[in-house]
Amino acid sequence: MTTQQLHEQILQKKSFLCVGLDPDLAKLPAHLLRTEDPIFEFNKAIIDATHDLAVAYKPNTAFFEAYGLKGWMSLQKTITYINENYPTIFTIADAKRGDIGNTSSMYAKAFFEDLSFDSVTVAPYMGKDSVEPFLAFQDKHTIMLALTSNEGAFDFQTKLIDGKELYKHVLETSKTWNNSQNLMYVVGATKAEYFAEIRKIVPDSFLLVPGIGAQGGSLAEVCKYGMTDKIGLLVNSARAIIYASNGTDFAQKAREEALKVQQEMEMIMNYR
Amino acid sequence: MTTQQLHEQILQKKSFLCVGLDPDLAKLPAHLLRTEDPIFEFNKAIIDATHDLAVAYKPNTAFFEAYGLKGWMSLQKTITYINENYPTIFTIADAKRGDIGNTSSMYAKAFFEDLSFDSVTVAPYMGKDSVEPFLAFQDKHTIMLALTSNEGAFDFQTKLIDGKELYKHVLETSKTWNNSQNLMYVVGATKAEYFAEIRKIVPDSFLLVPGIGAQGGSLAEVCKYGMTDKIGLLVNSARAIIYASNGTDFAQKAREEALKVQQEMEMIMNYR
Repeated sequence: MTTQQLHEQILQKKSFLCVGLDPDLAKLPAHLLRTEDPIFEFNKAIIDATHDLAVAYKPNTAFFEAYGLKGWMSLQKTITYINENYPTIFTIADAKRGDIGNTSSMYAKAFFEDLSFDSVTVAPYMGKDSVEPFLAFQDKHTIMLALTSNEGAFDFQTKLIDGKELYKHVLETSKTWNNSQNLMYVVGATKAEYFAEIRKIVPDSFLLVPGIGAQGGSLAEVCKYGMTDKIGLLVNSARAIIYASNGTDFAQKAREEALKVQQEMEMIMNYR
Repeated sequence: MTTQQLHEQILQKKSFLCVGLDPDLAKLPAHLLRTEDPIFEFNKAIIDATHDLAVAYKPNTAFFEAYGLKGWMSLQKTITYINENYPTIFTIADAKRGDIGNTSSMYAKAFFEDLSFDSVTVAPYMGKDSVEPFLAFQDKHTIMLALTSNEGAFDFQTKLIDGKELYKHVLETSKTWNNSQNLMYVVGATKAEYFAEIRKIVPDSFLLVPGIGAQGGSLAEVCKYGMTDKIGLLVNSARAIIYASNGTDFAQKAREEALKVQQEMEMIMNYR
C-alpha cells in the first residue's frame, strides 16, 4: 500500500485510528475460550465491528508468540482475514525487530512476504544495515522506534549527544539511509510537547502514535503538535478499545469506544 | 540453568563455543530439501555432530519466522530436541526483542515458558521497563545488546553522551535494574579492543560474542581482553560452521570446523 492510498482512506473514513490487537487469553471474554481459536475469533469480531472506523490494525507479535505455534497460526489467520476482507486497511506487524543485515532480510521476508503485512515496526539500536533490508521492499513501510511512550524511554532515548537527544539523532540519521522514503516513526503520545520538535526533522513522515488511552496521552495535544497537511498520524489504541468489555457484548463495546475516538478525530480534521 | 552450571560445562568441554543456528533454505544441502522438515533435519544433524564441542546453541528466530508457521514449528522442534537430548547445553533464543512492560512479559513467556529457552537476546532502546520483565525469571538469562558486530553499530552505539559512549551507558544503567544479575551482554568480536573498557563496567558478566569467522573477528584478541577468571565468554560462530559444506557431508564438515574452534579455545584456556 502506498502512503497516498493510506491518506485517501483517512480522508474517506475521517479517521486516523489504528486499533492495536494485543489478544491476552487472560482478558478475553469467557465464551470465546470455548472456541477452537479464541485469539482469532476475538480479533475477527473486533475487526468486523470497527473496520469502518479504523484505518489500520496493529497485531502485536508478542501476544501471539506467547502461545507458541497456535499463536503464530492465529497471527497468520488474523492478517489473512484482514487482507481478504478489508484490503484497503493498512496493516502493521508490531514486532520491533532489528538485527545484522542478513538476519533483518529474513525478518523482512517473514512480515512482508510470508505474512503480507504492509508495515513492520523496527528498533534502531543496530543502525543502518539493520534497517535498510526492510526499506528495500517497495510499497512496504518500516516504522522505526524514535521516542516511545514508556517510562524507560528516558533511560537512553532522551540522552544528549552533542547537545541533541538520541531520538533526534535517530530521526536525522535515518533520513540518509537508502529508501528512507519508506520510513515511518513511532512517537509516544505521552510526550505531546515533543511533536513540534520532531516535525522540524521529519515534516511529512507518518508517525505511529501509541499511548492514547490506557497510557494517558491526549489526542488533541498530539494533533496540535504532530498533524501535517496530509494528517501524517496513525494514532493507536489497543486496551481501551479491545477490552472495553469482557462480556458477550465485547465487540459492540469496542465499536462504541472506537466510534468515540473516530468522532474526536473527525472533529479535529474538520476544524483544523 | 545457572551461570555456575554453564561454567562447569565450559570447564568440562574445554570450550565456550556457541553454535549459531541460522538455517537458510537457499543454503541447505540439496538432499535435505526432500525431507518433510529440512530446517529441523539440518539443525538436528548439526547439533548431533557438535554437541560435545559446543556449550550453547543459538537459534536465530528470523531464520524460522521467515518460513511462517512451518518455520515456527521447526524452531519448536529444534529447542525441544536440544532440551530432551542434551539438557546440559545452554540455549539462546536470538530474538532481539524489547517492548513496553506488558508486551515484554509476553515475549518472556514465549521464549522462557512456551519454548523453554535458557536465555533470550533483547534490545536496550526502550530502557528499563522493556527489559525487567525478562529479568524476573529465575535461572533464565537476558542477553542485552551492548556493542554489536555490524557496521551500523557506529551509527548510535558509539556516540558520546557526557563524554562516554552510548553502549557504556547501556551497560552501566542496566546494572541498576531489578534482577540485573540475570543479565548477559552482546559484544561483537570485530571490536576486540573495546573489551578491556567493557570489562571495567561488567567485570564478571557473561558476554555473548558474535563476529568470529564470517564477520572477521579474532578469537585470541577477544579472549585477551574479554576473558575472566570464570571464562565469562560465549563465542558464537554460525556460518563458518553450519555452512562449511553443502554436500551430504555437511554435518561432518561442521564438526571439523567446530573442532578447530574448540581446540583453539582449549589452548587458550590451558595457557592463560
